[in-house]
Formats: sequence, structure tokens, C-alpha cells
Amino acid sequence: MTEHQEKKKFTKHASPDADGSTRPELLYDRNVARPSHAEDARTLTEKMDVATLCTISEKSEGHPYGSFVTYAMHENSPIFLLSQLAEHTKNLNSNSKASLLIAETGSGNPLALSRVTLVGECLEVSKEERDSVKNSFLEAHESASVYADWEDFAFFRLDVQSVRYIGGFGRMSWVNQSKWSSAEPDPLFDNSNDIVTHMNEDHADALLLYCKTMSKATDASDAIMTHIDRYGFEMMATVDSEKKPIRLAFESDVTDSDEARIELVRMVKKARKMLSD
Amino acid sequence: MTEHQEKKKFTKHASPDADGSTRPELLYDRNVARPSHAEDARTLTEKMDVATLCTISEKSEGHPYGSFVTYAMHENSPIFLLSQLAEHTKNLNSNSKASLLIAETGSGNPLALSRVTLVGECLEVSKEERDSVKNSFLEAHESASVYADWEDFAFFRLDVQSVRYIGGFGRMSWVNQSKWSSAEPDPLFDNSNDIVTHMNEDHADALLLYCKTMSKATDASDAIMTHIDRYGFEMMATVDSEKKPIRLAFESDVTDSDEARIELVRMVKKARKMLSD
Repeated sequence: MTEHQEKKKFTKHASPDADGSTRPELLYDRNVARPSHAEDARTLTEKMDVATLCTISEKSEGHPYGSFVTYAMHENSPIFLLSQLAEHTKNLNSNSKASLLIAETGSGNPLALSRVTLVGECLEVSKEERDSVKNSFLEAHESASVYADWEDFAFFRLDVQSVRYIGGFGRMSWVNQSKWSSAEPDPLFDNSNDIVTHMNEDHADALLLYCKTMSKATDASDAIMTHIDRYGFEMMATVDSEKKPIRLAFESDVTDSDEARIELVRMVKKARKMLSD
Repeated sequence: MTEHQEKKKFTKHASPDADGSTRPELLYDRNVARPSHAEDARTLTEKMDVATLCTISEKSEGHPYGSFVTYAMHENSPIFLLSQLAEHTKNLNSNSKASLLIAETGSGNPLALSRVTLVGECLEVSKEERDSVKNSFLEAHESASVYADWEDFAFFRLDVQSVRYIGGFGRMSWVNQSKWSSAEPDPLFDNSNDIVTHMNEDHADALLLYCKTMSKATDASDAIMTHIDRYGFEMMATVDSEKKPIRLAFESDVTDSDEARIELVRMVKKARKMLSD
């Protein structure tokens, strides 16, 4: 399904567009700064730690074989600690072609959640790299230290050649290797839930103020924050009993929770000034 | 890793075995009735509704490609409602070889959770079968009724040829097609969590009684139920401050919650009689 079809078919409340089709009526700037697909994909891979490793089956003549794995990220490549006795390891030892499907978990319609497929070659890491790879892996999976050095376990790395990102309905693309290599995970990803909870619990008035002054939701009766990232944040505003998404950008990108807080406070002051002017 | 190695390496508290190696000291009959791997695998596929579909990439020359899908079960085969525009559908249309990795979700060490890989051919269902497949799919995914009949969507079925089941550490095997075809999901799977919660909240005394009279945990100070299935149930008993697993079998297999309740009551009566005799 194309993005256009998605918008057309999944939007209940839409206004006629120039080409006669329908698009959702956005109450914020369509060109607001937001993470690229490469960045969203990279953030998702940093956030999760389990995935499906797809290899070519040695046993079942050319069938793709999916197996459950734990992974960590090491310089934009997923790394694994694999038992030589496991099916996927036997498969990789005879054919290094692989992919890794990492899917976000959450409630609601599962097809609205994001997922990414990293495609590439998956090979055992060299002796020279083993120590640094091991450190990255154990940082994410401390309990694996028990068997990390067993003889029948080895570290593997997926060298990513192409990336398919799906951010939910109608938000998908292939990300090329160079964009993937330079993409950095969102610096807020680890704290974003806490920030969102804090804003909703303690600063509901600020959220409503952002909507009334910095978006077209000037008549909003209520707003809750739904997401925050290095470029800005998202809210769901209630306007005439309807839920409307709003995204606002920070004046400058933030690199940690403190900077995010400073930006949010600056924006409240700006909003108050706009109201009083 | 073999089952033997697993037991040897993951068990802290073990007693010397006849062959000089160590095995966990079991406080219940090692041959107690329990679901087969085929049955456990079949139950898992019934319980979950999202998975990773592995196909052979058309775009990335022979690479296995993992994608997130929703699925339902139809006569022991997973079925899918796929968009013709999606990568996996393009892949299947050029090569029907596929597998589906279904992984249990839960807390704790993710490698202790169960997962199953179903390997086979994935093809669009015939016109004759479409209606019954559609019914099964929509029963599990009601919201898909919106697009189930769109022209660019089609139902696919994975005809399972072999099954790899991993029930956690050291509990794994290949299940052949005939065992898979005849395996039925556990009739309690949908209610098992409720039964377990109810037993722990309201019948802790009965659980302790089962342990003291029907297992070797005669000195247990506490017991909680952890699992129940058609053949019996499992508990974690506290013996000398150590947690010990116990599994007890029903006298006859149960087919629903009511029968499970009757068996549990019957066993309490039997346990009381054993104590008073």
C-alpha cells in the first residue's frame, strides 16, 4: 500500500485536496523537523534487544529460517553471541546471507507499531575485534557473561547493506547503507517515556498552551504529550471532541533530557508572551 | 547446546548422577505426563497473533528477508492477509519458500521463553478456500475486515513441512510434519493465567498440600502455581529457602476450565485423605 493510499483509506476526517483526493487536515506545519527514517530505524535498533535472525536453512534446502535472538548494537551493526550448536549458526557457517527483523512492542494495533529489517552478511567477528564486540554485547546482556567465553559460543556481526523501515501505516522506505551508517539513535530514547509522563502529569497546562499558540488547534480543550525526540515533540489535542495530532519543533536540536527541559520551558515562556501580546 | 550440557551448566544445585555428571535433583516424578513439543508448539502458535515471516528477498539477491506480520491459525497452518505491495508478498510471488518465527513474550530472561519456527511453502489460498480462511483470519483480527476484500490484498497460507520448537533453555527439538498435523493446542491456554492467579490468590493452602503429599517437597513452606495445561500443573515450592519446581499430573486429561477445577478439587480431597491416613 502506498503512503497516499494509506492516507486516503485510513483517515476518517479529511478535507478535499488540490488533486481531488483527500488528505488529513493537519493542524501543524507539515514540514516540521522530524527524525529521518534512518534515524527512527537506528533508534528502534538501540531501544530493543531481541529480534528475529533470518538465515538460509542448511537443513531445509534453501528455505529462509527465522530464529529468536538477543542482540546488541556495536557501531551501527547488530552483534550476536551464538552457540555453534544452534540452527542459525550452522546456517550462517554455510551461508552468511542474513537479515534481522526488529519490531517495536506495544499495545494497540500491532501494524501501527514500527519495525525494521536490516539486510546484510552475518559473519563471526575477527579475533582483533572480539573484545570490543564482547564489551558492547555484555553491556546490553549482562547475564550472558556466564557463557560468553565458552568454547562453543562465538560473536557474530551483521554487516548491514540495506535497511527497510516501516514506521507504521503508510510510513515506510528503503534506507541506503550510507544513510544508515551515519544515523545516530535519538539521544532521548531512553528517557522519552519519563519526560512524556512527567509533562502529562505535571504540565498539562503547558501542553494546552503550546497547542493554542503554536499550532492551528487554537480551540483545543485538552492536550496530552505522546512522543518526544531530539527535534521536537508530539501531542494529541482534543478539538471539538475530536483527537488531532500536533507536532512542534524545538528551536535547536536537543542532546539530552536537560536540554529538552530547557527547550520546553523556553517554549512555555514564548507561548505566554504570545498570549499576552 | 545439548539438553545434557544445559542441565549441567545452568543448574546451581545439583546432585551427583549415576554417570558421575550432575543433574538437578527433581522433587517430582521425572516421567510425569506433560505436553509434547508438538503440542507446546501448537499451543504457542494459537496463543500469539504476531510473528516474523521469513521469505527469500527478490531485491537483495538471495538474502533471507524478515518482516513483521499478523497471522491466524487455520487447520494447523498459519494464514496471512498480505498487501500485494509489501516486500514479503513480492518475495513470495517469486519464491514460495518461507518460515514463520513465533516467539512468546514475557518478562525475565528472553532466552528462557518459548519460540517456534514453522518451515514450509507459503502460497496464496485458492478461491475455493478463501471464505473459510478469511473467517479464521477475521476471527483473530477483526479490524482487518476493513481491507480484507481490497483488490490489492490476498490471503496466504504457510503449508508447514517441518517445525523447530525451543521451549527455553535445553528444551528443543525438530517436530515432524505428522506430529505437527495431529497436535492440538492446549484447551486451557486461554484461561490458564486466570486459573493460576485464582489458585495463588485463593487456594495457597491447597498448593502447599499438593506439594507436601504428592511430591518429595514434604517440607515445603510455601508453593505458588506457575503453569497449568491439559495434563497437569506446575508449582514453585520453597524448601529450605530454595525454590524447587514441582509438576503433578491430573488423573485424566482435562478439556476445559471446569474439568480442571474438578481435578484440582479431587486432588485436594485426596491430599487431605493422605494426610489424615
